[in-house]
Amino acid sequence: MKERKIILSEKEMPRKWYNIQADMPNPMQPPLNPATKKPAGPDDLSPIFPMSLIEQEMSQERWIDIPEEVLDIYTLWRPSPLHRAYSLEKALGTPAKIYYKQEGVSPAGSHKPNTAVAQAYYNKQAGVKRLSTETGAGQWGSALSLACNFFGLECTVYMVKVSYQQKPYRRSLMETWGANVFASPTDLTQSGRDMLAKNPDSMGSLGLAISEAVEDAAGRPDTNYSLGSVLNHVMLHQTVIGLECLEQFKMVNDYPDYVIGCCGGGSNFAGISFPFIHDKIRDDKNITCIGVEPKACPTLTKGAFTYDFGDVAKYTPMLMMYTLGHDFMPPGIHAGGLRYHGESPLVSQLYKDGLIEARAYGQEGVFEAALTFARTEGILPAPETAHAIKGAIDVALECKEAKEEKTILFNFSGHGHFDLTAYDDYLAGKIKDIEYPQEEIDKSIASLEKV
Amino acid sequence: MKERKIILSEKEMPRKWYNIQADMPNPMQPPLNPATKKPAGPDDLSPIFPMSLIEQEMSQERWIDIPEEVLDIYTLWRPSPLHRAYSLEKALGTPAKIYYKQEGVSPAGSHKPNTAVAQAYYNKQAGVKRLSTETGAGQWGSALSLACNFFGLECTVYMVKVSYQQKPYRRSLMETWGANVFASPTDLTQSGRDMLAKNPDSMGSLGLAISEAVEDAAGRPDTNYSLGSVLNHVMLHQTVIGLECLEQFKMVNDYPDYVIGCCGGGSNFAGISFPFIHDKIRDDKNITCIGVEPKACPTLTKGAFTYDFGDVAKYTPMLMMYTLGHDFMPPGIHAGGLRYHGESPLVSQLYKDGLIEARAYGQEGVFEAALTFARTEGILPAPETAHAIKGAIDVALECKEAKEEKTILFNFSGHGHFDLTAYDDYLAGKIKDIEYPQEEIDKSIASLEKV
Repeated sequence: MKERKIILSEKEMPRKWYNIQADMPNPMQPPLNPATKKPAGPDDLSPIFPMSLIEQEMSQERWIDIPEEVLDIYTLWRPSPLHRAYSLEKALGTPAKIYYKQEGVSPAGSHKPNTAVAQAYYNKQAGVKRLSTETGAGQWGSALSLACNFFGLECTVYMVKVSYQQKPYRRSLMETWGANVFASPTDLTQSGRDMLAKNPDSMGSLGLAISEAVEDAAGRPDTNYSLGSVLNHVMLHQTVIGLECLEQFKMVNDYPDYVIGCCGGGSNFAGISFPFIHDKIRDDKNITCIGVEPKACPTLTKGAFTYDFGDVAKYTPMLMMYTLGHDFMPPGIHAGGLRYHGESPLVSQLYKDGLIEARAYGQEGVFEAALTFARTEGILPAPETAHAIKGAIDVALECKEAKEEKTILFNFSGHGHFDLTAYDDYLAGKIKDIEYPQEEIDKSIASLEKV
Repeated sequence: MKERKIILSEKEMPRKWYNIQADMPNPMQPPLNPATKKPAGPDDLSPIFPMSLIEQEMSQERWIDIPEEVLDIYTLWRPSPLHRAYSLEKALGTPAKIYYKQEGVSPAGSHKPNTAVAQAYYNKQAGVKRLSTETGAGQWGSALSLACNFFGLECTVYMVKVSYQQKPYRRSLMETWGANVFASPTDLTQSGRDMLAKNPDSMGSLGLAISEAVEDAAGRPDTNYSLGSVLNHVMLHQTVIGLECLEQFKMVNDYPDYVIGCCGGGSNFAGISFPFIHDKIRDDKNITCIGVEPKACPTLTKGAFTYDFGDVAKYTPMLMMYTLGHDFMPPGIHAGGLRYHGESPLVSQLYKDGLIEARAYGQEGVFEAALTFARTEGILPAPETAHAIKGAIDVALECKEAKEEKTILFNFSGHGHFDLTAYDDYLAGKIKDIEYPQEEIDKSIASLEKV
């Protein structure tokens, strides 16, 4: 009997997050105040974030302590298992070894609680009573609802309307943990009302839902805003994933040649890859990190590296990142968590510097990969996660072609239990590849303000 | 930091199932041929079961080897974690220690694959090409779909119509693993057509869906039938749960005073409790095992111990068990998996002999317990599982009252990711206690054939 799961004990869980800013070959460009276009300082961020998170956002320290209270909640499901995908390997006939990190075991079903719990904790410490946020696929909203529940914070979630309609169970899940959930655009905020005036049938976007949540938080002194991806402190908290993987690979005396994650705002990819990029930069490890995105929202592969807003209404600081333009309205593909116009500035800078690679896939191939995984390893992946699976399968097949016994690690960022409408559609032949036209992307990027 | 999870390695997984028939103080009454009412032998069962399972059904051997191929698939998710429910304990203010066995980590989301994988394996070995089955809540159908997928068997599932309508995602999940799913009653079988003639609006029942699945299997030589609960071999396969718990308790030098599981057909309760009843019978351990059922379907607490059919159409052998009568149509409560009129003959005999206890609860209290659990331990339970949680919480509160530091173990038999309609209804105040009237039960039981 082969052993499939590599399990760390709770005692062996990482006690510090890894801050890649300490090791980047090129420094990060600062965020800019959205009005003045001058570098934004802590004061620009303090209306919606607690100072401890602002400090993490800007910190150059390599290792940052995980608070004991956060570790305690992590142990409800962490350390997460690292699986050797023997059945998938066999089905592919590849000589490559495939491992996946199972982040779907969290109560919210994805990696998102790794940062949600930390953010709720720091906000609670700062005396905040209520958090507002947006959610695309619903994974982030679920995670923050769960985290707020643990720390006794109120939680309001602006859920992108297309997901709200496709995934009613995600809404119920958030409500079960006590959150208030609204379909964005709403008439509760100016940015929502503006969108509804422009397009009453708008299905929403992450960029717009962010505007609504930021506006909500900025307008109430008891409320802060919480973001589930993109920002540096979010990437930081997610590094617990990759740090656990490093320990787990030691247990089986192996080490990955490829580290793969799906890429929306970048947090699960950053979480699994940054600790390996640490080794690449500092120990000269020969390792290929691949972010996988949908062809319908090809931020890294087709976007521009430039300053842009994080949201539609231009409330957020401008960030130096790969972007399709903040007005970009991606088609309503089922991988709602990958429909964001921008990309984490950290991931963007690393991509710019050639430390990571990116691939884009159409939805048909992605769902085919999801089914292959569900029918070999058993577990049903979220459509977002299926992008990473598609990437891993492709690399494994390249290894087969080249007869190379490489080691592949991918992040199983979440399960698909709330995504069965998408599987229904795929099985009924209704899911087609959507490629976003380059000229539309060029137009959207050309319209951005120059700074 | 307290350690919450007690984890066995794959190497430490039990290699044998425990057969409680070897240790029962009173022998089991034999099943009866439905036509002749004479004790049924292997020949009566061989049209729908492979001989290896029939042998297990009748075996008096204490320990039965788990095949290597079954162990291999078990390791996709087993051994499952044993959690110490510190957060729940704290919320209740109880001096009791509460542990739960997390069977929701299987790809199908419940304990059911423990027997589904074994049954698919033995059928494959016997050269069978196709399995038919019924499903109530959808957990069993999902499990068998998953298992058939692993062994390359076709799978046809008759899903009780009320669940089919309440849980469309469960159907999609089964289809993702390649199964064919029909809402029972169907017009594909005589028993289905008979019911539709009598009541075109019938929402179905487990008893009827079993008739349809048995009829399907009996009518096709390439097809066998597979049952997810009730029968002895199913209880046998589920003992892997309790056997793991025994090892896990050794790791923390503890041992339960109470072992609690929800009780529909009895398999998850049997799975967790039988290895402890072994200790009770053979080592005189002072341990209380409690099966928890809904007041809407109170088989153990209000039913009669008598011979009855397992299905509506009287196709199955008659079994000596607690029953509400095979015509009993329980109200469409959300815990669809607990809507069965009968009870495992093994569990029934042990209850008759005073080796286990039973409690029945209304749905409101059960969902309140589910929410308490979801908001403390994080994980959303299936409504069936919530009955066990309600039982554990009640015992923990009795311990608080009595100031007793007892150890409570319950089976977290499955997650509620496909049950969010029920949570929606509960949060909207739409879930009410339904108690089945005793005179209706008496009438149903009085109408049973005497043998």
